[in-house]
Amino acid sequence: MGKINAGLFGFGRTGRIVALELMKDPEIELKWVVRHTQTPEAHYASDAFDCDIDEARIYSNLELDINFFRENPVDVIVDFSAIDGYQTYIGPARELGIKVVSAISNYPEEVVKELRCAAKDTTVLYSPNITLGINFLLIAAEALHALIPYADIEIIEEHFRDKKDPSGTAIKMAKLLQQDPARAVHSVRAGGIIGHHEVIFGLPYQTIRLSHDSISKSAFGQGAIFALKQIVQMDGGFHTMEELLRGVIRENLSTLKEEVLED
Amino acid sequence: MGKINAGLFGFGRTGRIVALELMKDPEIELKWVVRHTQTPEAHYASDAFDCDIDEARIYSNLELDINFFRENPVDVIVDFSAIDGYQTYIGPARELGIKVVSAISNYPEEVVKELRCAAKDTTVLYSPNITLGINFLLIAAEALHALIPYADIEIIEEHFRDKKDPSGTAIKMAKLLQQDPARAVHSVRAGGIIGHHEVIFGLPYQTIRLSHDSISKSAFGQGAIFALKQIVQMDGGFHTMEELLRGVIRENLSTLKEEVLED
Amino acid sequence: MGKINAGLFGFGRTGRIVALELMKDPEIELKWVVRHTQTPEAHYASDAFDCDIDEARIYSNLELDINFFRENPVDVIVDFSAIDGYQTYIGPARELGIKVVSAISNYPEEVVKELRCAAKDTTVLYSPNITLGINFLLIAAEALHALIPYADIEIIEEHFRDKKDPSGTAIKMAKLLQQDPARAVHSVRAGGIIGHHEVIFGLPYQTIRLSHDSISKSAFGQGAIFALKQIVQMDGGFHTMEELLRGVIRENLSTLKEEVLED
Amino acid sequence: MGKINAGLFGFGRTGRIVALELMKDPEIELKWVVRHTQTPEAHYASDAFDCDIDEARIYSNLELDINFFRENPVDVIVDFSAIDGYQTYIGPARELGIKVVSAISNYPEEVVKELRCAAKDTTVLYSPNITLGINFLLIAAEALHALIPYADIEIIEEHFRDKKDPSGTAIKMAKLLQQDPARAVHSVRAGGIIGHHEVIFGLPYQTIRLSHDSISKSAFGQGAIFALKQIVQMDGGFHTMEELLRGVIRENLSTLKEEVLED
Repeated sequence: MGKINAGLFGFGRTGRIVALELMKDPEIELKWVVRHTQTPEAHYASDAFDCDIDEARIYSNLELDINFFRENPVDVIVDFSAIDGYQTYIGPARELGIKVVSAISNYPEEVVKELRCAAKDTTVLYSPNITLGINFLLIAAEALHALIPYADIEIIEEHFRDKKDPSGTAIKMAKLLQQDPARAVHSVRAGGIIGHHEVIFGLPYQTIRLSHDSISKSAFGQGAIFALKQIVQMDGGFHTMEELLRGVIRENLSTLKEEVLED
Repeated sequence: MGKINAGLFGFGRTGRIVALELMKDPEIELKWVVRHTQTPEAHYASDAFDCDIDEARIYSNLELDINFFRENPVDVIVDFSAIDGYQTYIGPARELGIKVVSAISNYPEEVVKELRCAAKDTTVLYSPNITLGINFLLIAAEALHALIPYADIEIIEEHFRDKKDPSGTAIKMAKLLQQDPARAVHSVRAGGIIGHHEVIFGLPYQTIRLSHDSISKSAFGQGAIFALKQIVQMDGGFHTMEELLRGVIRENLSTLKEEVLED
Repeated sequence: MGKINAGLFGFGRTGRIVALELMKDPEIELKWVVRHTQTPEAHYASDAFDCDIDEARIYSNLELDINFFRENPVDVIVDFSAIDGYQTYIGPARELGIKVVSAISNYPEEVVKELRCAAKDTTVLYSPNITLGINFLLIAAEALHALIPYADIEIIEEHFRDKKDPSGTAIKMAKLLQQDPARAVHSVRAGGIIGHHEVIFGLPYQTIRLSHDSISKSAFGQGAIFALKQIVQMDGGFHTMEELLRGVIRENLSTLKEEVLED
Repeated sequence: MGKINAGLFGFGRTGRIVALELMKDPEIELKWVVRHTQTPEAHYASDAFDCDIDEARIYSNLELDINFFRENPVDVIVDFSAIDGYQTYIGPARELGIKVVSAISNYPEEVVKELRCAAKDTTVLYSPNITLGINFLLIAAEALHALIPYADIEIIEEHFRDKKDPSGTAIKMAKLLQQDPARAVHSVRAGGIIGHHEVIFGLPYQTIRLSHDSISKSAFGQGAIFALKQIVQMDGGFHTMEELLRGVIRENLSTLKEEVLED
């Protein structure tokens, strides 16, 4: 099988890190990067990482039209740009059947709706926090909540001192578990903590904790790669990271593993 | 619906605690307790807990025959006795269709086989560690392993200083996750730690931890109650706690929860 | 050296546990227990623990006068009773030079003053939370705060769901570290968590955590025993647990340990 | 007061990070950097960080003689180079009274002896792990060990998967606490964990944990800065980081803080 051709929207702090992960993956070819700028100071994304070979030419979003996507064909567009970034590519993606992985954090509802519409013509995956670990935590917490709905639930999230608001992921987690975020989410702000999320399920005689620690933003790149590899095998529709993971887990749980018992 | 009538085998340290949990549950009636003794010093299990009403008469395992089970009918037998405890009840259970929840830790393979045979005539659930939390941990770890099989796995278990061997649960967990227990299980022994199990999944850019803390042995009682309530609704067969939980979770994961995304 | 003779005030939930610890200690003889009751239902504290030998006769606080303390002499009185318990013994203690270890949680300031006065005639140790671990945490946190006053400080305390108020120990810790408790203390309430306190010091490039987990109330007994053994060697004055620990630590830190470096 | 003039030996991975911290500190002027190379590719340390102003000229260790130190005078030399780096500066440091902060991890005993000798003529601080947090952990653990020598001690250290040997710091910690490292140190290797050290003190009724998480190597720079600022105020002698911290803590513990009790 040939490589998966990918294009990236966004080359800010996170975008750069994602670009590097995409370039490092042996099954993916990063064809180009589009950034929000008049004149890109570098010509290739690879320039930012002291690579020897030029890879992933950088374009300004101002110079793009439908021809760009025709002349520079890719299988998937990965979007780490900004709320309005999708406007440039969503039309061409529908027309040309380019799949989309969007990892923008805080889309208003209208944009999510527009992505759902686009999913009639192509495959779209949207995830506001595209790391594997966080999404697994959401699903595992959801499963445990279904199992022991009477358990007390508390969420601790720890981040660097300058992070102002409570973590959006923690709030989402609280809502998913039918808790009032104002009560259930405890936000710790201290020094340079990169990112810690912990869900506590308290029963009278036992406590269960599911936790996630971020080490670097490259985790977003890995999450995007996971999503990208899944959706290239899918035939259209609107998907979320949680749904992908749920599918993988459901499939796995169906295989009854009796051998464990034997040990 | 009437109460579920239960009989308990075993009235040692753990058995007593389980008896108390069974008696406290409003949907269960503990009819009797069988213990391994010539002459029980107490007449009722309730005597051990300063209850006012006599409940759950205690019998010696020496005085039982098939008539006992006919004259003192129950829906389920819960077994927290010893490796050979099943010999007293397994025949009558098959004959009378009494369901069985067995929570003995270290059955040799032959006994497990015998329970499987018995499951042709009645419903049998067997779990060597019947706490909900530990079994959830096993399943969640298994699911995460399926999702990211390339992650490094390490297991930390912490117990009171006098616990000699590595935790059987930790070893089982390691095997389930295809790790060599000798490498993957780290056994910490310190003071009076009741019981802590932690599975660590390490990826280059993030770490996920699933952990369980025991607070009291009553967790076994709660696990047995969960199992008991599930199997009274089942029509025969041999089951494990993990399988029960897997079923509940699988069912739950099938209901796609889109509302979360909308938030 | 002979045993230390001790008397205990208080035989409620915590008092009983402390009595047991005192009776188990080979260097201590628990001579009597005084409880707040008209007619004690048991004659000896040892009755509560299925001991064979009668030990520590129980008296009602109503039947005590100065003669009681003369006729039943002890070296130390340990107080786990209630706010007004000291009134019965403080006079006789001053007159007879009986030392006092008081572990009442929430004395109003006047009572603390009265204990300070009493310390002119005898040795008094007062500690509202007499566990060794919690007091060590306080001191270590204080020392770390002196070392890196610019670090961010956050405190997490976790307890069983029905504990209503934030932990007094956590609040005291926050004040000691010059933090506003309303901001710095995060109170987690879940299931049956016995008691967890954690102080987090966040620096830009590293995080330090000091934490304490309670396993059982017997820790109070051990703390009282530690205090008791220290004050029998002291010549009067008013002391706190923190001060005792500070002394032991200060002394230890003075011995420069160069050998470590050599290794 | 004027700035403290510092020179840095070492400009490898850690050296660079330390250089940046030194340049960022408003009370310190980094005058020069010496690296082990024939012809430095950059002229100034500041070049490595996109600074506008040239700062901290880089010299090769091959071009240095006593005149270099006379013509480029500094108050302190900070050494993050290699085992033999000290040979270039130790003579001039003694002759000119330049203070030394050495943070080399694994000096053989002879080198430590040589530094001790040099301390007759100037002030020398040596620390194989110069982070504040780790050194605090060592001292706090030592203090707690003195307080409760009968507690069980276990050490968990977690690092990235490719770190081969057990952490030197964990081993040192075990020895300091009189534990056999082979038994007491548990080494977890998983994914990209930067560095976690945890000392567990287990008592029958409570558990105390002291832990440290590394976020970045810049912590070494901060530790060196702390050491540097302390030794510029000192009059000769050989010192260790632990000893400095012990001094600060001891001083602080002497001030009895009664106000805490009053609250």
